[in-house]
Amino acid sequence: MSKKSEPCPVARSVDLIGDRWSLLIVRDAFDGMRRFGDFQRNLGMARNILSDRLRRLVEAGILETRPASDGTSYQEYVLTPAGESLFPVIVALRQWGERHLFAKGEWHSQLIDKGTGKPVPFMSPAVAPDQAEVRKKP
Amino acid sequence: MSKKSEPCPVARSVDLIGDRWSLLIVRDAFDGMRRFGDFQRNLGMARNILSDRLRRLVEAGILETRPASDGTSYQEYVLTPAGESLFPVIVALRQWGERHLFAKGEWHSQLIDKGTGKPVPFMSPAVAPDQAEVRKKP
Repeated sequence: MSKKSEPCPVARSVDLIGDRWSLLIVRDAFDGMRRFGDFQRNLGMARNILSDRLRRLVEAGILETRPASDGTSYQEYVLTPAGESLFPVIVALRQWGERHLFAKGEWHSQLIDKGTGKPVPFMSPAVAPDQAEVRKKP
Repeated sequence: MSKKSEPCPVARSVDLIGDRWSLLIVRDAFDGMRRFGDFQRNLGMARNILSDRLRRLVEAGILETRPASDGTSYQEYVLTPAGESLFPVIVALRQWGERHLFAKGEWHSQLIDKGTGKPVPFMSPAVAPDQAEVRKKP
């Protein structure tokens, strides 16, 4: 699937970020997390796996490294513009989970529009699945 | 992360479908694929892994099994309503890939609106990442 000839954008995306840790690291990066130790503590993942995923996300141009903003010797991992544009992916995962993986009345974290103080509205494509089809040949 | 107390809907979603094979099986199901052999041939994955992923997707209420529509003894795997509502996730992965993982002029498969014959419009949340924040406490 990762062969460059793969014509399906879903497959290419999934080959890059379609694993639990990468998606959770990107989620945390959107939450403002920047440091190895913070990702490691928050995700409770093995340091070697975290190192591997961070390296892959940097190689993929989703994260970039920067010197620590506070002048310490820490390195920080920050979303690139391409990484920032993964926002719809994370929001779609969040909104599906909100609707299908919580019991009635069970509390979940909320994505809030800072401007309105209200939850970010539900996002969906302009067409329903049965009104869409994939064109597989030019 | 998969502990039921996990308050983050992104994490709960990722725990269920945050792996390459599950996402590609869901993609193929949206494309109308229904049979074990068709998934297996299209994804080129080991039968035991495909069996495991299909079972997990059925247990998660994303796919359901049905007798073959043509009256043969085959079993078919069809998206449930909860599975259908993963459409924004697949579209977001597709649209990110289209924008970031193809060279200029390189052809990719396209998601077409059957009504207009045109590509499904780009989908994004109502707010930019920097205008959103996650509320982690009730």
